[in-house]
Amino acid sequence: VNLLLLEPHEVVEGAATIDGPRAAHLLDVLGVRVGSQVRAGIVDGAIGTARVELVDGRTVGLRCGLSDRVPDRPRVDLVLAVPRPKALKRLWAQLAALGVGTIAIVNASKVERFYFDSHALAPSVYRPLLIEGLAQARDTRVPIVRIERALKPFVEDELDVVFGDARRLIADSAYTRSPFDAVRARKERTVIAIGPEGGWTDFERDLFEQNGFAGVGLGARTPRSDTAIVALLSIVHEALR
Amino acid sequence: VNLLLLEPHEVVEGAATIDGPRAAHLLDVLGVRVGSQVRAGIVDGAIGTARVELVDGRTVGLRCGLSDRVPDRPRVDLVLAVPRPKALKRLWAQLAALGVGTIAIVNASKVERFYFDSHALAPSVYRPLLIEGLAQARDTRVPIVRIERALKPFVEDELDVVFGDARRLIADSAYTRSPFDAVRARKERTVIAIGPEGGWTDFERDLFEQNGFAGVGLGARTPRSDTAIVALLSIVHEALR
Repeated sequence: VNLLLLEPHEVVEGAATIDGPRAAHLLDVLGVRVGSQVRAGIVDGAIGTARVELVDGRTVGLRCGLSDRVPDRPRVDLVLAVPRPKALKRLWAQLAALGVGTIAIVNASKVERFYFDSHALAPSVYRPLLIEGLAQARDTRVPIVRIERALKPFVEDELDVVFGDARRLIADSAYTRSPFDAVRARKERTVIAIGPEGGWTDFERDLFEQNGFAGVGLGARTPRSDTAIVALLSIVHEALR
Repeated sequence: VNLLLLEPHEVVEGAATIDGPRAAHLLDVLGVRVGSQVRAGIVDGAIGTARVELVDGRTVGLRCGLSDRVPDRPRVDLVLAVPRPKALKRLWAQLAALGVGTIAIVNASKVERFYFDSHALAPSVYRPLLIEGLAQARDTRVPIVRIERALKPFVEDELDVVFGDARRLIADSAYTRSPFDAVRARKERTVIAIGPEGGWTDFERDLFEQNGFAGVGLGARTPRSDTAIVALLSIVHEALR
């Protein structure tokens, strides 16, 4: 963990008192004592440092010296065919660490219906995992998660509201264009739609293409879906650097 | 699985008989019957198709029509600080799927000694996982794995033999240069050295730099080590496309 993340309600007049896993990490891994400084941030808020004022057993008292600077949202958004629950649980922290502004989890032909009933889609499950990823990447902005069970109306009617004028890409092994080359102008926002293990169907690719998505692919090799997601996000981020 | 991989000894005069998980996959997932064609390859050998000649219970008889074409080794090699065994077991298939020619697993200051005693480093454990990744990516070339417990002599004396004149990169959060930009000429081989969760030490970075490695980093965000490995390999591959 590279950043201690505090919930807004935990910080009162610049002071916070924590116990549990975060306090244990400070005490046992970082070995803090009174006077130590650690990097700290407020969930969806400012970032800065916190000074340890008190250690009482397994409780740590902190005084926060946070800047006014709130990190920008990552410039990459994601439309993701709902992954297998086990894979999704492993993905949440990785997505937050790689940096995603909005994650729209959508339906696709080649996913199993029951994926949507998984508790991996419950905020009580994914929010702590997203925050774990943010702490790793020293970010405070929790990705916005949308669950969209109906792909067609979402793609046809809601994209402008959700993603604004972001460049739109769809990844599939049917396309050969490099995702790096497709992101021409640095600094522009990009949303990338990534299909399920079996890929998007012809109908789905047409739907995305008719709504402004340009096709990109990883080339001849087709890694497993969870690996492909990390690969595609990394390449788009790299192209925006 | 996108490619049925057969061991060389399984194919006798163009015919192979298989049972077990591969036969089950053909029968239950692909639903083959006599006359079906599937993509097939020989481990470390040629690639092509196989025709189902016989289905007898859970046993499948195949006739292979393989080209003379053996896939090239991937142009990316990896020097990797030995990962935590649990993470390494999940990495093997992903590394093979992303495409790595040679994987040198090395020691580093910030790894635990016992990592080297893990059975995740036993060929009987990692080879099936590498082959699983190859089958996913439709490749036949098994990455060459070297276990190097002594970092300094390996970096100082063996790199030319192992990696030839490949471009040498070292990844660490201490560096700001983009890995994409560091790979200038497409088609050239590249070896990238990736440290442990805590990063390389000053000594280790100096050692790599003095032996021709140029420093690159993923930028401000520092994803978990296993995510960073997939990200860095993807970006280098993309830059070589």
